[in-house]
This record gives sequence, C-alpha cells and structure tokens, in this order.
Amino acid sequence: MARMTLPEKIAQIRAAWAGKGDMIDGLTFVPAKASAAFPDSIGHVTRPSDKRGVPGITGAAGGTAARWRTPKETVEFINALQKWALEDTRLGIPILLHEESLHGYMATEATMFPQAIALAGAFDADLMRRVQSVIAREVRARGVPYVLSPVVDIVRDPRWGRIEETFGEDPYLVAELGVAAVEGLQGPGKFERLGPGKVFATLKHMTGHGQPESGNNVAPAQLGERELREFFFPPFREVVRRTSIGAVMPSYNEIDGVPSHANTWLLGEVLRGEWGFDGIIASDYGGVHELATLHHVARDEAEAAHMALLAGVDSELPEGQAFRTLAAQVEAGTVPVELIDRACARMLTFKFRAGLFENPYGDWNVTRTITGNAEARALALEAARKSLCLLTNRDAALPLDPAKMGRVAVIGPNHAIARLGGYSSIPKQTTSLIEGLKQIAPGADFVTAQGVFITKSEDRSADLIELADREQNLRLIDEAVALARTADTIVLAIGDTEQTSREGFAKNHLGDRTDIDIVGEQNELVDALAALGKPLIVCAINGRPPSWPNVVAKAGAVLECWYPGQEGGVAMAEALLGKLNPGAKLPVTVVRNSGQVPYFNDRKPSSRRGYLFDDASALFPFGHGLSYTSFEISEPRVPTARVAAGQPVEVSVDVTNTGNRAGDEVVQLYVGLPYRSVTTPIIALKGFERVTLAPGERRTLRFTLEPRHLSIWNREMQEVVEPGPVTVSVGNSSANLKQAEFTLA
Amino acid sequence: MARMTLPEKIAQIRAAWAGKGDMIDGLTFVPAKASAAFPDSIGHVTRPSDKRGVPGITGAAGGTAARWRTPKETVEFINALQKWALEDTRLGIPILLHEESLHGYMATEATMFPQAIALAGAFDADLMRRVQSVIAREVRARGVPYVLSPVVDIVRDPRWGRIEETFGEDPYLVAELGVAAVEGLQGPGKFERLGPGKVFATLKHMTGHGQPESGNNVAPAQLGERELREFFFPPFREVVRRTSIGAVMPSYNEIDGVPSHANTWLLGEVLRGEWGFDGIIASDYGGVHELATLHHVARDEAEAAHMALLAGVDSELPEGQAFRTLAAQVEAGTVPVELIDRACARMLTFKFRAGLFENPYGDWNVTRTITGNAEARALALEAARKSLCLLTNRDAALPLDPAKMGRVAVIGPNHAIARLGGYSSIPKQTTSLIEGLKQIAPGADFVTAQGVFITKSEDRSADLIELADREQNLRLIDEAVALARTADTIVLAIGDTEQTSREGFAKNHLGDRTDIDIVGEQNELVDALAALGKPLIVCAINGRPPSWPNVVAKAGAVLECWYPGQEGGVAMAEALLGKLNPGAKLPVTVVRNSGQVPYFNDRKPSSRRGYLFDDASALFPFGHGLSYTSFEISEPRVPTARVAAGQPVEVSVDVTNTGNRAGDEVVQLYVGLPYRSVTTPIIALKGFERVTLAPGERRTLRFTLEPRHLSIWNREMQEVVEPGPVTVSVGNSSANLKQAEFTLA
Repeated sequence: MARMTLPEKIAQIRAAWAGKGDMIDGLTFVPAKASAAFPDSIGHVTRPSDKRGVPGITGAAGGTAARWRTPKETVEFINALQKWALEDTRLGIPILLHEESLHGYMATEATMFPQAIALAGAFDADLMRRVQSVIAREVRARGVPYVLSPVVDIVRDPRWGRIEETFGEDPYLVAELGVAAVEGLQGPGKFERLGPGKVFATLKHMTGHGQPESGNNVAPAQLGERELREFFFPPFREVVRRTSIGAVMPSYNEIDGVPSHANTWLLGEVLRGEWGFDGIIASDYGGVHELATLHHVARDEAEAAHMALLAGVDSELPEGQAFRTLAAQVEAGTVPVELIDRACARMLTFKFRAGLFENPYGDWNVTRTITGNAEARALALEAARKSLCLLTNRDAALPLDPAKMGRVAVIGPNHAIARLGGYSSIPKQTTSLIEGLKQIAPGADFVTAQGVFITKSEDRSADLIELADREQNLRLIDEAVALARTADTIVLAIGDTEQTSREGFAKNHLGDRTDIDIVGEQNELVDALAALGKPLIVCAINGRPPSWPNVVAKAGAVLECWYPGQEGGVAMAEALLGKLNPGAKLPVTVVRNSGQVPYFNDRKPSSRRGYLFDDASALFPFGHGLSYTSFEISEPRVPTARVAAGQPVEVSVDVTNTGNRAGDEVVQLYVGLPYRSVTTPIIALKGFERVTLAPGERRTLRFTLEPRHLSIWNREMQEVVEPGPVTVSVGNSSANLKQAEFTLA
Repeated sequence: MARMTLPEKIAQIRAAWAGKGDMIDGLTFVPAKASAAFPDSIGHVTRPSDKRGVPGITGAAGGTAARWRTPKETVEFINALQKWALEDTRLGIPILLHEESLHGYMATEATMFPQAIALAGAFDADLMRRVQSVIAREVRARGVPYVLSPVVDIVRDPRWGRIEETFGEDPYLVAELGVAAVEGLQGPGKFERLGPGKVFATLKHMTGHGQPESGNNVAPAQLGERELREFFFPPFREVVRRTSIGAVMPSYNEIDGVPSHANTWLLGEVLRGEWGFDGIIASDYGGVHELATLHHVARDEAEAAHMALLAGVDSELPEGQAFRTLAAQVEAGTVPVELIDRACARMLTFKFRAGLFENPYGDWNVTRTITGNAEARALALEAARKSLCLLTNRDAALPLDPAKMGRVAVIGPNHAIARLGGYSSIPKQTTSLIEGLKQIAPGADFVTAQGVFITKSEDRSADLIELADREQNLRLIDEAVALARTADTIVLAIGDTEQTSREGFAKNHLGDRTDIDIVGEQNELVDALAALGKPLIVCAINGRPPSWPNVVAKAGAVLECWYPGQEGGVAMAEALLGKLNPGAKLPVTVVRNSGQVPYFNDRKPSSRRGYLFDDASALFPFGHGLSYTSFEISEPRVPTARVAAGQPVEVSVDVTNTGNRAGDEVVQLYVGLPYRSVTTPIIALKGFERVTLAPGERRTLRFTLEPRHLSIWNREMQEVVEPGPVTVSVGNSSANLKQAEFTLA
C-alpha cells in the first residue's frame, strides 16, 4: 500500500457497475474505455452478469431491450477486465467482483433453487449447505469470488415485501441456516484462503431490516439494545463465531435514530470489537448516499462518505458515488488518510484471501460443465421436495390417488408458470406445476384453465404494479368453473407473483402491503370452485406467508410450495400424487390478518392478551407442517433435575412414525427460562432435527443444550447464565409440545 | 418514623380497598371491623366511591347488585375512616385516599367532561386546566386528596383499546396538556402544600403503554433509549420540571425486557435522578404482583415486592398484596429496612404535603354545593363545544339550516344515549344527541330510529362482549331506511360503545381490536341510508379514532364528537344546527386500516415509503379539523437567517378569518431539524394556539422556540442543540403547512 496514491486507494474502496458504458461497448469490455474512465484502476466491479440495455436490440416498447450476459459473455467480460487490471493499470491489482445469489446465482443459465423462505422451511442445515455449495461453484466458475448473500434478517412483519428473502422469524433457525449457508458458499469453518469453487459470502442486512415500522421497507426498526442482542444479533454473531465470513452489509434502516451505515457502535464496537469480525463491510446499494438523501444525518454525499467510513464501511456499492468525494476530503484535511488506509487494506486483504492475486479469471470450460448440470438440477429438485409444507389436509384430501382421482382440473394463475421469486434470472430450464403433473402422471386426465390473472403484467422490474382486469377475471372464473364441473378433482395453483410481494426499493417501486390476504379475484375463484363440492386442493405458490383465511377454510388441503425453484413443478406433482411425502415446516408464524402483526413464536409472556371480535391465535403457528403419515414424539428426557450452570445438558426424545408410510418429521426443541432478572420468551427454539422414518420406525434424538442456549442478557447487559428453572419442550410445531423441566443451580 | 413499628410502616405503603367487607357493613365504615382487620392501621384507601355489591339489593341476574356510594355516603365513609385513623389507631396518622378522575371524578353525581382524547382535541391548555380544576374540587370536597390521572402516554396504536384515555400521539401536545391538567388538579407550578380544593395528580403510565406489541394491552413496548427520551419521556419530564407533580405510576408493560414496575433505571436514575422527581411512585393496580404472574421476572409475590421496592415503587395498589410479604422479608434479612423506611417516609411526606395532618375530612356541605353545579355543567358544555372536530364537510353539508332542513331523521345506536366513555360513573344529568337537538331546535321536525344496536348489552363491566344480533339489526336498518325516506335530512349517530373500545385488563376481559373499522352492521346502515341520496350527516361518537373509510366516503359530513361528556348532546346539536362552529383538531393520526399502523405525525424521514394496492396516506392527518368558516395562515416569519444556538427564536405568523362567520382556528407550529448527528422527525409539533376570530379578523401570533424545542439526543445520548438548519412550518394541520427556515450557528 505504500506504493499506492490516494486516488488508487480510493478506487479500491469504490466500485463500478459492469453494465455501464464507461467500460463496455455493447456487452464487451473495452480496455481503452476503462483506462480513460478509470485512470486509477477499478477496485471492485458490480454484477458482471447483470441485465442491461444492449444497443441494437429493440425492446417490446420500442426502446433498447435489456438482456443478461450469457455465461460465456460473462466469463469473457471478467477475463478481459482482469487482464486489463493486471496488465494495463499501474499497480496490476486484480479486481474484486460480486454477484447476487440469494437462492441461486442470479445470472443466465444458473440453477435456481427454491426461494430463501422455502429453503428455511426445510429445516435442514445440510441441505442448505449443499445448495449454497452448488451456488458457489456456479458463481466462482465465471470468475466471481464474492456474493451478496445470505440474508439473515429476523423477519417480524409479513406486510414487508422482502419476507421471502429471509430464513424466517426465529433467531436460532436463522443462525443455524445462516452458518450452513455461509459454509456452503465459503467452505466450512475458519480458514485463511477461499478454497476452489468457493466464494466469500455476505451477511445482510445488519440489522433490524425485518421489523420495519408500519411494514414499510427501509423504515426505522424500533428496537432496544436487549432486543437486538437477544433476537436480531444471534444469526450475525453465530456466523462470525463459527465461520470465516467474508463480508457484512449494513441495513438501510435506522435503529433508534442511527442509520446502520453510520452506526459506529453496531459495526465497530459490536461486530468488529465484541465479535472479532475481520472481513469487509460493504454498503448496501446506495446505503451510504442515503445517509444524506433518506436519513438526513449527512448534509451531502461527502459528509455521508465520511460518516460511513468512520462507522467502518470499507466498500461503497454499487459504484462508490459518495466515496468519490473522499480524495478531496483527505486533501482538505477533513478526512484522515488513516481511514482510507484502513478500508483499502481490508479490501486488499479480502482480495488476497479470495485468491485473486493467484488467479482472478473465470473458466469457461468449468462454467459450461457445471452450470445447471444434472447434479445441480437434482439438488434443486431435492430442495424443492424438502421445502414443500403441508398446511392443511382435511379428510386426507391429499395425496391424490392416481387410480381414483379421475379427471383433474388444474386451474389458477400459477399452474402453468414456474414462479422463481425475487432475485432470480433465467435458468436453463424450469418445470411448472402442470408440466410436473404430466411428467409424473403421463396417463392421467388433466384439463386446465387460467382461473384468474393476478397482475396485468409479468414484468417484475416494472415500477407500477396493477392488478389484473376484474371483468376479465370474472369471465375467467366462469370458464374455470365450467371446466371444473367436468372434472372429479380440482387442483388450484394460486398465490403471489414477483410483483405482489417484492422489495419496495423506492417510492415509485413498492412491494409492501397493508392487506396481506391473497390479492385480486383469487378468493372469488376459490369460492366459486369450492361451491362445486369437489375435492379442492390448493397449491400455494407465493413469497409472502399465506395469511389467507378464506382459502384455508375452503380448501380440502393446502400445500405450501413457496417459490419452489426451477424443478418445483416435479416436486409439487410428486407431493400431490403421493410419490413424495411433504415434511417441511413453517419458518414464520402465519397471521390471520395484518391487524395481528407482529406475531412471532418467541414472544414474551405479557404479549398477545387477545382481541375483541377476532381470534388471537395464528392462522398457522411457527414450526407447523403436516405429513401423509403420523408421528409420535415422546416427552423430552433430561438427565437430572438439577444441573450446574455452565454444564451442557443432553436432552433426548423419541420420535416414531406411527403411520403407514415413510415420511419426514422435524423434531423441534424449545427452551423457556422463566424467573430470570429480565423477561424472556415463553419458549424459544434451541434445537431441531429433520428425520426420515419408515413406517413404525422409531429413533431417539439427542440435543445438547449448551450455556449459550441458556443465557440471557441481564440488567447490566451482560450475557450470563442465571440460575433458575428451565423448561424443555419438544414437538413437531411450536404449538404442539410436550414439556419437561430442570433447574439450573 | 422512629416511633413506628415495622408493620406500621408497611401499612403505610400498602392500601385497602374501600369496597371490601373487612372495614364496612353494607356501605358503612365500621371502626371495630377495621381495628380487627388492620391492627397496624391503614396507610392508604382505594376508591372510596367505588361501585360494590350491596347485600340486600338484588341485581338483574338475581345476585347482589352493585351500586356506587352516593356523595353523602362517600363523605360519611371517609370521615368515619379518618376519625378511626386519628382516634382509634396507635399513631393517629391520617389515611391517604385516591380516586379515578380521568375526565371527571369517577363517582356518583360528579361532573363528566368529554373523554381525554376529546379534551386533547380542543388543543386548549387553559380549558384543560379549568376542567381539571373542577374535577379537583369535586374530588377534594368529599375528602380525597389524590387522583390517578392524567394519562400522558404517547399513543401509537389505534388497535389498543385504551386510546381514548390518552391525549394522543404527540409528545409536545401531551406534555403541554399534561402540565395543564396537573396544574388544574394540583394548582399551578411548584408548591410545598396542596391548596384548598386541590388534589395530587398522578402521571401515568410510565411508559411505553401506548405502543404495545400487536396493539395488545400491557404487551411489550419495543423502544430504544433515544426513542424513549425523544418521544415517550417528554410529557413526564415536562410535568416534573414545571409542576410539583405528586405521583407517578409505572406502566404495566415491559420495555426491552424490563417491566416498568421493576425498572430501576426508569424510576430511579431517570425519573428521580435526572429529573429530580420528589413525589411518590404508586403501582398500577396489580402491577407489582404481575412481576411474578405476568412477566415472570419474580418467582413469587415476595420477590416481586422486593424488586418493585428496589426500583422505587413506594405504594402498592390497590391493596398491597405483594407488599404484605415485606415484614417477613425484613425480618429474614432479605429486604433491608432502609427500603421500607424510604417508601414510608415518602408516603408520610405526601400526606403532609396533601394537608391530611391538618384536615383529613370531606365536607358534605361543600360537596353538595359544588358537585355537578351550574358552573361545572357550563364548563362541561364549553369543553364539549371545544372538543367537536369537523372531519369532512362536502358541499357545506353542515351546518344544517333550521329553516331549510325540513324533517330530520335522527338515527343510529348513539342518537339517544349519552355515551360517556371509559372511567365514567353516573353524573347528575346527561344530554343525548336527540335531547340536545330538541332543546336547541324545539320547533323542528325530528323523527328517530335505532338503526342498529352495536352490542348485545350495555354493561360496560361485562367480560364477554357480543356484537348485537345481525338479523335484528338488518330489520332495524330496514325500519331506519323507511323512516329516512320520509325525511329531508339524515343525522346518523354511530361509533363505539364503552364495550367496543376499552381497557383489556385480562384475557377474559378484552378491549383491543385487529379490525378498527366501525363494528357490526353500522357500515351497512350507512350504505343503506346513503343510497337514499339525501343529506347524510354523521355524528361520530366514539373512543377509538374513526378509521372508517366507508363512512367517510359516503357521509356528506362527519363531525367527530368523541365521547363528549354529560352535556355533549347540547354541543353536538349546536354544531349541527350552526349555533356553534367546531374548532377542534385531531390529536392522533387516523389511519385507513390497521395494516397501516403505527402511523404518527413525527415520523422519521425513512418511514412510510408506501404500499402496493393501498393508499399510504392517513385517512385524516394529525392536527386536522375543519370549520364552518375559512382561515388563512401566513408563512411563518423568523427574525434572522442565522441564530446562535442557545438563543430563543421568536416566530410570528398571521391568521385571518377569511370566511363570513366567527370561528376558532388552531394554529400549529412544527419544527424540523435535518442534518443532525442522529435522525430526527421530518416535522415535530413545538407550538400551538387556538384563537377565536370574527369574520375578517386577523391576528398575529408569536411562538418562542427555546433551546429545549431545538434539541436532540445525540450519539452519546446527551441532550444538545446542534448547529444546522431549522425548518419552521405553520398551518392548521400537520398536512397543510407553510415553511420558513433559519440556521442555528
């Protein structure tokens, strides 16, 4: 770094958008343009595979159409870029590149797995690790060493449009899945250098993002410090503790008056100080700038840049618009150069640890071989299978018996489209529900109808979202009913689109909702079909939890499929037809309506007294999920009635498949710590295990409660294990538990 | 105190319910019973006027009917009680008594003023002071020196059933009205001894009660320290700073894991330490006990008592159930006697300052003379007049012209009943809307119909609340429509009852709601009447803010009357008939639906990005309220463009009545402090003045912004005035403002 000029250092902590014309012609990297636009080199390039307008290709509206770089173009772009950096810049420092990969590399032909909330519902850390491992290799093959995932926000508001991007509401579940995701992306545990096929992960968004005021994206998170430490920090802290997590991204929101991108306490004292995080802190897109334009804690982007740098932000994304001002500020003496050096050193260390100094290039041969290959497809199918959650099943409406189901009317706006959810691109192939059904039961009599359209357009990047035409939908409902009359069984695929629940990233690009029931005429479609009195099976294909009381009341069975990924159609078909036994659980509480929010399983004892004229219970509790077989879970066994504080406690429990087919059960362990010096949740998840059991099979599971599972944040804000009773509850849902108790001495 | 035994000291910090049989026979105090039950005397007696079952009087259901003590019985009871204390107990210490008086002394024949939220809407501190002064004298005349009001909770959730008990959502408004209320009750400013006719007030509930999780009463308040200091503390702090406030009551809820009754930081460091509060801290009813039973931070009532005493609770209400355990705990050495001494000394000082050692008696002659007298009635009428808030008035639907209105159909469940709201008793007289109309326009042609019933019963103490029978209501709607067809104008009195919005004090006694639209068949009644196409005037008589989008859309005018007090019928009639020009404003934001909560005027700039498929704006903004005349408010004038921090700034503004009749306008001043080191509200109320102007009259108002109006709580949690821009906005609603700016140097 001693050889670097100030502008060269600042270039390392800024970034450049791979889709911008200052380095490309068409989609091709042009060294001369880059040299002219970036005389101090480029430190970091944003989203090389991103969709952009390409001159010469005309779009539907007559303007320039956007398209994504193909895998080959991406590799070529990256390799040309790195060649330029190594050979045509003064210092020859390789460039860092990042991509999005929430549930699959967000780039052409990459494998699209089920959406994050679906993966969480699998309650399967090993699956998460393997999925993220495939994502990592598809990203790294193209030459990208760093991704902006996983999301480990604790989510407590279903009005928020980003709920599908999360692993749900529970700090323990999110922490365990967060660790698994990071291990899948980066490789296991602690290390010095990224291994081959691995990418650095980003924990985002630290923190409070998932409990925004009024359910509105980026709104303030009203949280006290103990609430933060007990519920919102654990996923971040556990990942830092157990892995070599490469990066953390601050959240857009403020907590108690301090925006996270300027929160020295959060990013400095807690993250780097208390937890010892040694990676980079990269801003969320525009997050530094918004210190001035949204939060009004900085007067302009110069002040914003200084403030973020002071708080510990090392890299401004997507382009370093505010960090551009830093050179002048250093020269004016208002920003000490040591702050630049600190951030620059971290970025260079990060590149070194990523292996860029050894090999910064992508590999087209590897890319071609592994992208969306058979193994990846098989894993996407496995993930979809494990993500399906059976919410209701009255009178064993499911599975359908192919021999008896007769003609099946497959209806609804999501029956013939493979909905992938937010942060998706175009995988090599997809399978919709109807395609899956035909594949699984080729000889069956399927007839189809649209039922309704949900929105007017399918353009997920559209700012204005309009619900579909009501008159047209009423006609389509009539057509669907007419068709259904001719059928013996109705399968209805309804839910969201990528337009009805999404990231509301601007005032003119909204994604949050006040009414979280199913939108448009879908309830009317359900009413009309239910009135026929035939078996009515609902496949819920959605990103926002299904607070659909009318649908739940009228359907014979509701199979929660979320956005099930590119192979989802097969998995759904298998589940409907009994070739697969669903075993996922809800990673969030499903409320009855938005008047009940927030509603989460680890609530305090003084919460939820009840309401006049409405049910106070959830529509579906956290951890809920049925099976085609039945399980019996024994009472938990604890070794002794008294345990010395600080000692681990082994809890054992028996789970038996008491039905007549194989199936998966997720045994959940919850702990209660009553009578401590501060209030504690009635129950809080501290263990889970998903097991597959043959009919009649019984297994004994063992959970170890360590001191960290039994600690609280006391009045002095110290993490301590206080003596007192411990309740240990086990079951297959947060609302179906058997309890034992022991005492911490 | 040196002469007191430990049990005698503990008796002083406990209380006894005046309605319990251990001191009475029927309703009469029996010295011998008291001596037997309370050998160490009684320190404090709870609610001498309270309703209780009286043997020998049979209730409707066959059991013992409850009745209130008459004024005379109350005085006699108190005087007998005090005589016993002075003459028959060892130390002769007079007894402290308290009553409820939220919007009038909650005792028979006392004057019932408009509900707290209505009084707040008057935006008139002088009116508040005079109202509370009349309340004080009615209470004190009977011999009670201490009341459990005002409520200065900041309310941010309309689902919460206690919203009507508050002065609304705004810290400045609540603080100013809180100071005025306390001055009315106690006498102005600082003093050593209560004056004649005065009572000690209680600030309640400290704090966070008005933002309970999920809108459920007593649920946790998720608040950070800065949020507390900036938004929730100001009313408490201002009252402590500017008055000799006698008592503070902790809130039932927890904040960030610490229940307020055990919050040493809140009650000790902040309230007594930082602010110098020197009165007593009395628990909310059962609040100490609930540390064990609700919050589970104490194992039993003994631990709860110790914890509350340590935190600074001096008096346990209503009976000292947990404090009963203290004698044994002191004797066992687990509770230091110094804690008992501290609380006991405060209670004795309180009695001394209340004048009980000079004259602890009530005075029947004074009681008889002043209770509900003509002056009090006139003030109740004035308060009702000033509390009426005109929300909409399409095409000048109001006022009705008596010469042209023809036959008026007065319809609705609240047209013939004087609804007083929670914390009411039975005043000497009441006037319903229809009675008021007949009184104001004796010659007019009024016809009436029930329209619908709201609930099955009118028993406000009932646990189970059932909405009225739907079939019956549909018949009543038909009848109302038939009647309305014969009329020229429709006046519809709808809203709440004391059952549909109330304190949910137990799991079997609920008061919060998920759906905050008007309940039952009232929307259908509105629809049916609106379909007639006749002028439709809605009198909203309610405790919960009117989130009634359908009513608002269909009514020609909506007059928000809240629960307008015993004389409300006259005031409402005057307003409808144009003898009174409404001038109140909304002390809360009225949301469109519960999916929008929380929604408050002093929001941060990153809040409220917007929603898909729903309007993001409020149904009515904070500070909104129309008039039958029109006003013009000039731009604010600030003396200079730069002001030295620490200097007061005088802002002047002209307000002109530009219409053709006299009226009241509430000129509101809001301040914005952008670009500080922490986020600040876009606008925050820092001044208001209600003026009455004749047609064409213009007045110049002057507001002084002092440092305390311009301060923030910085990153180090210090209250400072930081340099930077100051926006000054004035107008007649938070959504209709003109702005000027100056800079703090």
